Amino acid sequence: MAQIDHVSPLAPAQFPQLPQIGGVRFAAAAAGVRYRDRTDVMLAVMRPGTAVAGVFTRSATRSAPVLDCQAKLGGAPDGAAAILVNSGNSNAFTGHYGQSSVAAITAAVAEATGVSSERVFTASTGVIGEPLPHERILAKLDELNGALSAEAIEPAARAIMTTDTFAKGACAEVEIGGKTVKIAGIAKGSGMIAPDMATMLVYIFTDAAYDQAALQALLARLTDTTFNCITVDSDTSTSDSLMLCATGAADVDATGNADFEGALHGVMLDLAQQVVRDGEGATKFVEIRVTGAANDADAKIHGLSIANSPLVKTAIAGEDPNWGRVVMAIGKSGAAADRDRLTIRFGDILVAEKGWVSPNYREEDAAAYMKGQELVIAVDLGLGDGQATVWTCDLTHGYIQINADYRS
Amino acid sequence: MAQIDHVSPLAPAQFPQLPQIGGVRFAAAAAGVRYRDRTDVMLAVMRPGTAVAGVFTRSATRSAPVLDCQAKLGGAPDGAAAILVNSGNSNAFTGHYGQSSVAAITAAVAEATGVSSERVFTASTGVIGEPLPHERILAKLDELNGALSAEAIEPAARAIMTTDTFAKGACAEVEIGGKTVKIAGIAKGSGMIAPDMATMLVYIFTDAAYDQAALQALLARLTDTTFNCITVDSDTSTSDSLMLCATGAADVDATGNADFEGALHGVMLDLAQQVVRDGEGATKFVEIRVTGAANDADAKIHGLSIANSPLVKTAIAGEDPNWGRVVMAIGKSGAAADRDRLTIRFGDILVAEKGWVSPNYREEDAAAYMKGQELVIAVDLGLGDGQATVWTCDLTHGYIQINADYRS
Repeated sequence: MAQIDHVSPLAPAQFPQLPQIGGVRFAAAAAGVRYRDRTDVMLAVMRPGTAVAGVFTRSATRSAPVLDCQAKLGGAPDGAAAILVNSGNSNAFTGHYGQSSVAAITAAVAEATGVSSERVFTASTGVIGEPLPHERILAKLDELNGALSAEAIEPAARAIMTTDTFAKGACAEVEIGGKTVKIAGIAKGSGMIAPDMATMLVYIFTDAAYDQAALQALLARLTDTTFNCITVDSDTSTSDSLMLCATGAADVDATGNADFEGALHGVMLDLAQQVVRDGEGATKFVEIRVTGAANDADAKIHGLSIANSPLVKTAIAGEDPNWGRVVMAIGKSGAAADRDRLTIRFGDILVAEKGWVSPNYREEDAAAYMKGQELVIAVDLGLGDGQATVWTCDLTHGYIQINADYRS
Repeated sequence: MAQIDHVSPLAPAQFPQLPQIGGVRFAAAAAGVRYRDRTDVMLAVMRPGTAVAGVFTRSATRSAPVLDCQAKLGGAPDGAAAILVNSGNSNAFTGHYGQSSVAAITAAVAEATGVSSERVFTASTGVIGEPLPHERILAKLDELNGALSAEAIEPAARAIMTTDTFAKGACAEVEIGGKTVKIAGIAKGSGMIAPDMATMLVYIFTDAAYDQAALQALLARLTDTTFNCITVDSDTSTSDSLMLCATGAADVDATGNADFEGALHGVMLDLAQQVVRDGEGATKFVEIRVTGAANDADAKIHGLSIANSPLVKTAIAGEDPNWGRVVMAIGKSGAAADRDRLTIRFGDILVAEKGWVSPNYREEDAAAYMKGQELVIAVDLGLGDGQATVWTCDLTHGYIQINADYRS
């Protein structure tokens, strides 16, 4: 792996103070799957009755752990549940051996924790196509089980990092019927980020109770405007997994509660944006707001076309207000656009309208704006009410450096 | 524009010796549209009776010259025809002013050359969104017209370059009915290369005669397996134009001739591959052969997904046989794939089959192969007879360097 010797300049100042979530305990360990001198396995164990929802990559070459999780989802939340995640090896494209590894791990976690193997979910992240040395993980299960603690969510967040330069966490609290419900989540992700149904590895926990089927529907719906609206490099992981566990320990049923949904959306968006802030080589955090599209789907297509364009992303890296490349990205997207109805703004600066550069536009204003670390590119198509917002980062020498040498 | 102080390592040793094409004369001039101390305008004038075919970008924000060319195509080839191209400014997203510039240029070319303005085709390539100082071009028209010569195709090829590091030409000869027919073409293109119907600026001339409607159909069909199968960076230009002019000066009708079609295909493929060889920052030329797909369309989707993946392209730049990223790109493409039927080869080296790494695969063999400058990645889906071959280059620091600073 290429040397990553600095924290992203877009990182939050520190890992947030996450609340303990009743009914969940965490542990992390250093199993030496690939990395030396750091933790690389996390275990989370949830109390009986926990509802578990998940969304996963739609990649046709998705990993063995993803396939196993998808097969297990939707089961009745009677017993306890567990999640085991390793970093350093993705156990993707590893054939039947990959499935055997998952089976060995889930059986061993079941034995160590007492959770039914049908309720043990796993994920693996790292290099694709190399056999997972799962015996190194098995050797750590008793240590992990013995160390489980409600406080250990931050070590869990650190254990699942790969090219990430900082650990990612977010939380919220909601009052429901006079009681306080808590939500806390962790995520990893930095490259190979163009989620399709979910992104990277994300685990969110709440002590609210929630109907199992409704929780799954809620998670899928909120994913569309959070994790499915970010991109670092247009590449889609074979391991993308997002899971949400509702333990019910707070003794409050949040099913259908709008405040809970809003708080959960906030946690998901926060984690999604942290993934972009840790985009490989990123030096700028960019929000792309698309309005006036023929419909919401078109707006998202335009937004992702801009966000994925190497020429737009390199212009941003160079602090060049090269709005012509934004025009290009809209033009190639395939969604409806009318050159003469387009309006483009960089922050509050009106750059282009009515098919041409605005008469009041001064390049020096836009150039000054582009020096900022947090940028907004706003595009109005002038066609309808469709809108979408997506988030991305710039494309820099750092991305090349990290990825031209990932495995060596 | 960023300093480009070297010729691509993938460039041909020299510009080819292109034959003179009866019925076509060329000239180049330095109009100072944007660049200093170099030619930036080319004029080609074809004799009366020349059939002209063209394919153009499908971008929704395509340039004023493209819109003008599309409106003029298909007219009867009665009179002479002319093509005028400038580099340094694309006259794209320049509103009504852009259309006025095109009208002024085509009228002035008509006056200088005696060609009807309805048969004057133009193209502009360079920065998007800045007004084209077309008066600088008009001031050079008499000089251009006076300098027209059958030998000046290479100066014409040089005048249309932007970030290109070498001029691109290709040619062929075909015997038809005991007579020799010649084909010669020139192209420019280096970045913003992911053609959709055509690519960059390409002009091909033949002294064969050809039915106008059949010529258009032939050009569109051959484009699908040549220019539409290359990509440098997944970004689609607003100016992509490919034109083919059949002057008939050789007094041979090549309409429907299979040898002519084969030779033309060869010239188009040669020019398309030269564009990839001059991909911004490129150090490796990569052919991606996809076979066994459910159908040809799926094969092309998989091929372009691999060719456009930043992670595949950076791995190639790093000479890393990271075939897991090829698996990822297949998985995300959206076209049909079955993990357990995939076969992947780097050159002759069998890397992966049956859903996992081949038992005989040795990483050191593949690593040695990746040090080459010309690479073949072959993927067999194991599903059907669909196949496609696409060409691309690696993604290097050079690409970032060129594009993070293009306008400064």
